[in-house]
Amino acid sequence: MNILDGRQIASEIQEGIKQEIIQLKSQTGKTPGLTVIIVGENPASQAYVRKKHKIAQKLGINSKIIELKADIPARQLIDQIQILNRDADTQAILVQLPLPEHLNTWEILDHLSPEKDVDRFLPVNLGHILLNRTHIFPCTPAGVLRMLDYNQIDVSGLNAIMVGRSFIVGKPLASMLTNRNATVTLCHSKTRNLPELVQQADLVVAAIGKPGFITADMVKKGAILIDVGQNFLYQENQVLEYCTEMQQQKFKKKGYGITGDIHIKAFSKSSHYTPVPGGVGPMTVALLMENTLQLFKQQVHIE
Amino acid sequence: MNILDGRQIASEIQEGIKQEIIQLKSQTGKTPGLTVIIVGENPASQAYVRKKHKIAQKLGINSKIIELKADIPARQLIDQIQILNRDADTQAILVQLPLPEHLNTWEILDHLSPEKDVDRFLPVNLGHILLNRTHIFPCTPAGVLRMLDYNQIDVSGLNAIMVGRSFIVGKPLASMLTNRNATVTLCHSKTRNLPELVQQADLVVAAIGKPGFITADMVKKGAILIDVGQNFLYQENQVLEYCTEMQQQKFKKKGYGITGDIHIKAFSKSSHYTPVPGGVGPMTVALLMENTLQLFKQQVHIE
Repeated sequence: MNILDGRQIASEIQEGIKQEIIQLKSQTGKTPGLTVIIVGENPASQAYVRKKHKIAQKLGINSKIIELKADIPARQLIDQIQILNRDADTQAILVQLPLPEHLNTWEILDHLSPEKDVDRFLPVNLGHILLNRTHIFPCTPAGVLRMLDYNQIDVSGLNAIMVGRSFIVGKPLASMLTNRNATVTLCHSKTRNLPELVQQADLVVAAIGKPGFITADMVKKGAILIDVGQNFLYQENQVLEYCTEMQQQKFKKKGYGITGDIHIKAFSKSSHYTPVPGGVGPMTVALLMENTLQLFKQQVHIE
Repeated sequence: MNILDGRQIASEIQEGIKQEIIQLKSQTGKTPGLTVIIVGENPASQAYVRKKHKIAQKLGINSKIIELKADIPARQLIDQIQILNRDADTQAILVQLPLPEHLNTWEILDHLSPEKDVDRFLPVNLGHILLNRTHIFPCTPAGVLRMLDYNQIDVSGLNAIMVGRSFIVGKPLASMLTNRNATVTLCHSKTRNLPELVQQADLVVAAIGKPGFITADMVKKGAILIDVGQNFLYQENQVLEYCTEMQQQKFKKKGYGITGDIHIKAFSKSSHYTPVPGGVGPMTVALLMENTLQLFKQQVHIE
């Protein structure tokens, strides 16, 4: 079994972006601009946003965070988005999800300029993915493909199972794998015979947010396992059941352990697997930076 | 085994549309407008277009056909589309596919107003389907769902196999079935173990254009079989192999027989099946009429 090392790959991608930004700046005098809008005080969201900001700055991206109060009226949030749509220094806009309850996610996102939609969640951008007419993808699915590419894994002809049908991961990634000639089965909470379906898969992608949900007995020997889940566990018995030894050590110091949606005992049956943490997570952040760079190049007409 | 009778269902849908158009006209003084653009002289396309036109007229739709020469420059075709985009009497525009070789399909279609895109092929409309945010679908996939609804077949939890990944049928229909809680496997020319995958499916949809490609031995007993294929056969041995007795009779008179992508011997193993002809085909036309009515209602703000 081989580890698909997201930290390593992400760090190489980021180094490449950093160099390219230096070069583009010397050519054009301009720097890619990424603005993240965060509404309310969800601690997990705040931590993600800070992390993205820190990395973006390190790569030379002109990164801004706009923090808005949890009770902001939809109209004011939309106004803010429209200001950024018109701002020539911002090529990439990210509205951090989830939004507070009183805001309808799509009523907000629909006001984002499709060309500045760095998450690639807007209908027109998802439609282009379905049609195989774009090379810019939502960050997490894009990160998964890049890990496969880095390890020269060709999915053509493979039977793939995508567990989870969110618009953030499952639906676009299923389309992207289909476009790469995998035979994809898209599973979800209403799927009746998940264990049998997983058993047949050469490639398993899990994105459901349930610790250790895909168990070792479900997995075919030699399968490729991609784990998009990132679950925080706070109870010792759970940590002992679901987490690696390293995370068990961490639990003793920090009071929590992290694990994915695929049970750690399944790794030994795989040909390749992504660890959690250190797998898909870092790739998502790296691809956000790469998407920012791509949008910059599109909008200032370099390519 | 039960026949899903597309002719009967389509005729009921059309009767309903006809009545609604009469009523809407008396309310608003307006009539839905459908304009079909056909480029070149592909005989199959011409036949389809005439058929659509005849039915549209019968239902009280203001139906127009714009016939353009095969060698029309892209610019002129786009100009024509843009005139229709601005025409308040046309709520529905259909560009008959395939276009002649020298025209890039997407470079043309991208100029269509998304709200007048009656085929629902534009990226933004496909994106809305993926996101489960619309009730207007491409005509053939929409027709398939209506046949299931008419026969009170709930696909939730069923294992479905979609054979064929075109943007006209396979990709949108796979998304639509997923949104109805089926577990969908999307297969195509690079799929390695199609017979096994079909064998496991409760619902089989074939849209590949190969006569009798899904054979009886592949099909699980009690499966629902939906056949989107419509293949014209001109050789007697093929007609005898693939066509129903009725089509064999037709061959003697007309020199061709029609059959689908699912072998006729598979029907007896099914719980429900769509005949070819008389299954999905008439539904596609009926749903084009219904989409026209829907777009009309959206654009004149009735709903």
